[in-house]
Amino acid sequence: MRRKIRMGMVGGGPGAFIGNVHRMAAALDGCIELVCGAFSSDPQKSLEAGRNLFLPEERCYPDFQTMIQREASLPLGERMDFVAIVTPNHMHFAPAKMALEHGFHVVCDKPLCFSMEQAYELVALVERTKLIFAVTHNYSAYPMVKEARVRIQSGALGAIRKVLVTYPQGWLSTFLEAEDNKQASWRTDPNRSGKAGAIGDIGTHAENLVSYITGLHIESLCADISTLVAGRQLDDDGSILLRFSNGARGVLTASQICAGEENNLRIQIYGEKGALEWHQMEPNTLLCRHLDRPTEIVRTGTGGLSMEAQVHTRLPGGHPEGYLEAFANIYRNVAMAIDSVLHGTPFDAEVYDFPSVYDGLAGMQFIDKAIESGKSDKKWLSFS
Amino acid sequence: MRRKIRMGMVGGGPGAFIGNVHRMAAALDGCIELVCGAFSSDPQKSLEAGRNLFLPEERCYPDFQTMIQREASLPLGERMDFVAIVTPNHMHFAPAKMALEHGFHVVCDKPLCFSMEQAYELVALVERTKLIFAVTHNYSAYPMVKEARVRIQSGALGAIRKVLVTYPQGWLSTFLEAEDNKQASWRTDPNRSGKAGAIGDIGTHAENLVSYITGLHIESLCADISTLVAGRQLDDDGSILLRFSNGARGVLTASQICAGEENNLRIQIYGEKGALEWHQMEPNTLLCRHLDRPTEIVRTGTGGLSMEAQVHTRLPGGHPEGYLEAFANIYRNVAMAIDSVLHGTPFDAEVYDFPSVYDGLAGMQFIDKAIESGKSDKKWLSFS
Amino acid sequence: MRRKIRMGMVGGGPGAFIGNVHRMAAALDGCIELVCGAFSSDPQKSLEAGRNLFLPEERCYPDFQTMIQREASLPLGERMDFVAIVTPNHMHFAPAKMALEHGFHVVCDKPLCFSMEQAYELVALVERTKLIFAVTHNYSAYPMVKEARVRIQSGALGAIRKVLVTYPQGWLSTFLEAEDNKQASWRTDPNRSGKAGAIGDIGTHAENLVSYITGLHIESLCADISTLVAGRQLDDDGSILLRFSNGARGVLTASQICAGEENNLRIQIYGEKGALEWHQMEPNTLLCRHLDRPTEIVRTGTGGLSMEAQVHTRLPGGHPEGYLEAFANIYRNVAMAIDSVLHGTPFDAEVYDFPSVYDGLAGMQFIDKAIESGKSDKKWLSFS
Amino acid sequence: MRRKIRMGMVGGGPGAFIGNVHRMAAALDGCIELVCGAFSSDPQKSLEAGRNLFLPEERCYPDFQTMIQREASLPLGERMDFVAIVTPNHMHFAPAKMALEHGFHVVCDKPLCFSMEQAYELVALVERTKLIFAVTHNYSAYPMVKEARVRIQSGALGAIRKVLVTYPQGWLSTFLEAEDNKQASWRTDPNRSGKAGAIGDIGTHAENLVSYITGLHIESLCADISTLVAGRQLDDDGSILLRFSNGARGVLTASQICAGEENNLRIQIYGEKGALEWHQMEPNTLLCRHLDRPTEIVRTGTGGLSMEAQVHTRLPGGHPEGYLEAFANIYRNVAMAIDSVLHGTPFDAEVYDFPSVYDGLAGMQFIDKAIESGKSDKKWLSFS
Repeated sequence: MRRKIRMGMVGGGPGAFIGNVHRMAAALDGCIELVCGAFSSDPQKSLEAGRNLFLPEERCYPDFQTMIQREASLPLGERMDFVAIVTPNHMHFAPAKMALEHGFHVVCDKPLCFSMEQAYELVALVERTKLIFAVTHNYSAYPMVKEARVRIQSGALGAIRKVLVTYPQGWLSTFLEAEDNKQASWRTDPNRSGKAGAIGDIGTHAENLVSYITGLHIESLCADISTLVAGRQLDDDGSILLRFSNGARGVLTASQICAGEENNLRIQIYGEKGALEWHQMEPNTLLCRHLDRPTEIVRTGTGGLSMEAQVHTRLPGGHPEGYLEAFANIYRNVAMAIDSVLHGTPFDAEVYDFPSVYDGLAGMQFIDKAIESGKSDKKWLSFS
Repeated sequence: MRRKIRMGMVGGGPGAFIGNVHRMAAALDGCIELVCGAFSSDPQKSLEAGRNLFLPEERCYPDFQTMIQREASLPLGERMDFVAIVTPNHMHFAPAKMALEHGFHVVCDKPLCFSMEQAYELVALVERTKLIFAVTHNYSAYPMVKEARVRIQSGALGAIRKVLVTYPQGWLSTFLEAEDNKQASWRTDPNRSGKAGAIGDIGTHAENLVSYITGLHIESLCADISTLVAGRQLDDDGSILLRFSNGARGVLTASQICAGEENNLRIQIYGEKGALEWHQMEPNTLLCRHLDRPTEIVRTGTGGLSMEAQVHTRLPGGHPEGYLEAFANIYRNVAMAIDSVLHGTPFDAEVYDFPSVYDGLAGMQFIDKAIESGKSDKKWLSFS
Repeated sequence: MRRKIRMGMVGGGPGAFIGNVHRMAAALDGCIELVCGAFSSDPQKSLEAGRNLFLPEERCYPDFQTMIQREASLPLGERMDFVAIVTPNHMHFAPAKMALEHGFHVVCDKPLCFSMEQAYELVALVERTKLIFAVTHNYSAYPMVKEARVRIQSGALGAIRKVLVTYPQGWLSTFLEAEDNKQASWRTDPNRSGKAGAIGDIGTHAENLVSYITGLHIESLCADISTLVAGRQLDDDGSILLRFSNGARGVLTASQICAGEENNLRIQIYGEKGALEWHQMEPNTLLCRHLDRPTEIVRTGTGGLSMEAQVHTRLPGGHPEGYLEAFANIYRNVAMAIDSVLHGTPFDAEVYDFPSVYDGLAGMQFIDKAIESGKSDKKWLSFS
Repeated sequence: MRRKIRMGMVGGGPGAFIGNVHRMAAALDGCIELVCGAFSSDPQKSLEAGRNLFLPEERCYPDFQTMIQREASLPLGERMDFVAIVTPNHMHFAPAKMALEHGFHVVCDKPLCFSMEQAYELVALVERTKLIFAVTHNYSAYPMVKEARVRIQSGALGAIRKVLVTYPQGWLSTFLEAEDNKQASWRTDPNRSGKAGAIGDIGTHAENLVSYITGLHIESLCADISTLVAGRQLDDDGSILLRFSNGARGVLTASQICAGEENNLRIQIYGEKGALEWHQMEPNTLLCRHLDRPTEIVRTGTGGLSMEAQVHTRLPGGHPEGYLEAFANIYRNVAMAIDSVLHGTPFDAEVYDFPSVYDGLAGMQFIDKAIESGKSDKKWLSFS
């Protein structure tokens, strides 16, 4: 890269969780610098947040509209190159749309937006502007996830037959939204989260992980969607039978009422000739099972891995990398893609990949169909 | 006990897997002795098998009918006290029925029998004869499974909300029944196995484990039942959404095409106040999760366990017990129950429990409903 | 075998731990029957113990002398074939010697005896009588331990360079011998345990495991032997640097004051080309590390294992076997060896092996040298 | 902080491993910026490295002397605030000394320097200048390590009795220094590494971890130090018996010839009332063992942890943090300390701690004594 890529941020003010994650992920590799932000809907809070991030006052904006307009008026190389949107779901669409319309690339937290209409509009806008648009389905950015994907693409498992993905969390086991918990409040509020709770918040991560690793298309699903904590307005638990277009079967479970669980995303993929198993909480290990010989413990940073795993790894084996490093892989790749746009640098988008607006759309379609199935007496609902 | 309890065996000749398991389980605690058997439908093989087990020739019978008749004519204390039935599924009913009709207690392998009609007839016969009838759902006999049950009964988890039980095996990943594999042949043959393959062979173990630990009743289910290996006659894979009568949700997966898996039965149970997790392949550990404090590693043979766990444990902590010891718990308890019948010895059937003919019936009903659901377009099928 | 092999037992009465272990281990495979015993130094307790084991009164002996004399007078096939000695250490020698002198084979718990003089006398007696003499270093009888041994013999690791064996237990973390705990009392009493505490009780198991798996000879050692609980008379903790005759280095730690540990014996063996790692508490897994490819999880009961591992396994993969099954491997092999003596049955002693009186002697020499080193200012003490 | 703290770097050019680690660690939290460097002893390489890091050419210096002199002439707030030294061991002392003499704070990789003389001189210089001096013993900066330290300080384990620390790596299993491997070459070269190989490279990390967590003082040691790969000039393996001043015993093993091992640092600490166990390769878990109740799995980012663990954690439980995050904890704390010096900001050095020049000195003393012991026939060598 010729220079650091310049980031503006929407959201991520005091009390936010994911905003700081995005900032650390963007900072890790030293190729992105935060240059401005509209960190809060409260101008004073936005200003304070920006100061704490060592930004000059004039680039701590009171709202995203002002930020996008003013930045657009700055010269290239001074103005931000892209916007990171880290607000609650109902606040993704407007800044994303405006950013694209003003020529800024976008990194948007997941799920993509609030409604299917918004999703289709964003897709159309990305296609029209040809700008870079990433959605932070960060779990697919772990090196061992990339290794799994490559192995399946290369046929190491033969045809996939069965996929089990389980994503239990426990933090919504109680009626936490009644206790002034900022994270719980918006995630369980249909006006801010959208039509789904757990299915949107973490179910979409599980869906993205399945799609990314296996490359399979979910043809139809059958969902049992529940709200198990009294008083809650959105689902907090769902289990979904999956049928893939190649005939494989699957089960996806996402739940936020699994008392005592932290963030226990795990996936098991079984093919004709072997299997792969990955646990997010021990992300540097990929178990590779075989029909006729011992299971192998494939490890981040060790020999014999794919190019795709290697270029998303920063340390030798046994020096654990984690959630932030995977998240940073998305930002580093986005920076490379923007640099390529800016300077024509060659860039292998197959290897240095990141989730796109289409992945975001697939997540929205998954939410839509799962919630519909949860309310339906019909056993199987198809994706058209 | 006043004397060793005397066992006769039906099945378990050369090439059998489970027959030897039953013999080792019965022998372990020194309170049961094998006194006779009809080990094979081939009289010569039965004789050879008996000789290898150090039985006198006159008690190596050519068939179960002869065995039951002759033994019934021997005096009490010399004749067998109970029959262990370890044949393929289609051969459970006839010897079980005849044994009961001749006054012998029965230990029967699972699933209970071949058809619902047989199941109901056996239940009626047990109720009429008041004889002891055990079905070897051995996984519920592990000490940590008993500990889990006691903890849930005592309210440690509050109301149960979600149950995940997964039972992947890989041994039927290929079309093994074409290769003269005795175990694969009968288990995939509708004439010997019954209407279900994997669902009957291992799905019923998973169902029994859920029912035993949680005490919950499955109200309805929605199943995706598949045959994923070409040419196979019965299901080799199934995933089933469960709804329990208390409102809890569940998912049960049983599959024999999960390449590279051994016998990976695991269960996760989430309640309002905590969770329990148990893996059959590391059976001496029970993970106890809590809302507000660290997960505990509860271990077989250590302090603070329930009476129920303690009396089903033979060794101090760290001296691993396994599959045979759990299986032996059923036999030991059956021996205590028979001794109680014979001699009036007091016997706490709540603590020294074993799966009954009703558990066997529940397994048959589960098979029946799951297979029906697999073929149905209706989303939820209820148990009446 | 032509008939069951007949066992008499010395020790193993009320309150004993290891006596019942020996009985279960001997019973498991149905090829050994308990026919008599002197279970306690109190004749009444011995009688009661025998009754509870369903023995006839006339074969519940008041002491081992009476047992050996009377049994020796019974005809072959009726009398016991071998004696199992399960008493505290100071009571191994006398019954072992008398048994050998009366023509009985012996299975003796470890350590072999109380003093070096006794050890040498037993070796001489075994050599003279040519009777079978097994010492129950049971940890070397696990199938994955045998697999490890075969792999190293076959050169899979190249030359061994480093061995780490760690054996922490926690049960003597408090001054338990003051609380009328039978197991703690004799094990910490120099008059009953011998010159060593933890080093004798568990250090010898660790030493045997190293020797069995690696085939290496310990040339010299340097020990730090401690008594860390105030008031205790024998060592409860030791760490020992090892130098092997091939130049390899090692560390052996055995401690019974490791609070919270159960029975956590583990061994790591590093060679030029790879490594092996085994944990007794998860005994069905052998980790095989390689220089240039992923670590493999080698598992009991799965394909590709050595004959030695296979014939010491009773169940398919994923059906966990444990401590008793390993212990039973010793008894089954002893029974085969006795059968071979009785009937000339061919018997491959290399495959169906068990720890011998020489292994017992090596354990005694290890105790002797380790305790001497613990008291010495000299850094390295050599085994001559 | 009022502004970002400004970092200059010595070393870390092309082919370096640890230089990039330091840069990522410094960047993660957004409070430090790299402003200059002397990245290589080759001026052209230094310039290229600086350009790739987006530095202006005038601050890519040809050598550390030039860098320190020129930076010292810049105004405060423009010039670097501290120097990060990431060169091989023999190149730590000169830039550290010069930096201190010119008023710059220092972050120095471990071990502190090349010889005891240098170590004592650096200590004296730090004491005289009162500048901040951190040594990157990064393993003690993991949140669960800090939690362990606090628990032991609070008496949760009672008096410590036994410490086991094991640090196996496998990357030097072959004679890698003959293959033009940069990392292997200098680490096995006495002219660049100092008098120790594995003991200096990783043994000092293990020593620091023991000292940091337990707070115990090593009174004497007895070492077996070996070179197990033919042709190597420095030790590649060592096992060391430890005696602590409170009477506790310990064993420290550090080896780089453990074939197949990655970076498997682990520590087990046993006290009168419980134990702690931590594995660097799964760093977010701290096992807490107790005398009378189940082992607890204490986890980064969950409730109930100490302030010290909390403020060194960036993510909620189940979002794994790793090696870089721990390393970043040192840099973040150094930045806070420098900010406190610059602006008088209150700063709790007990909570926001980092390894000091005294920790570096202790590491040098450990190397010195361990290597001496390895060559000695005397059993115990004392630290004076």
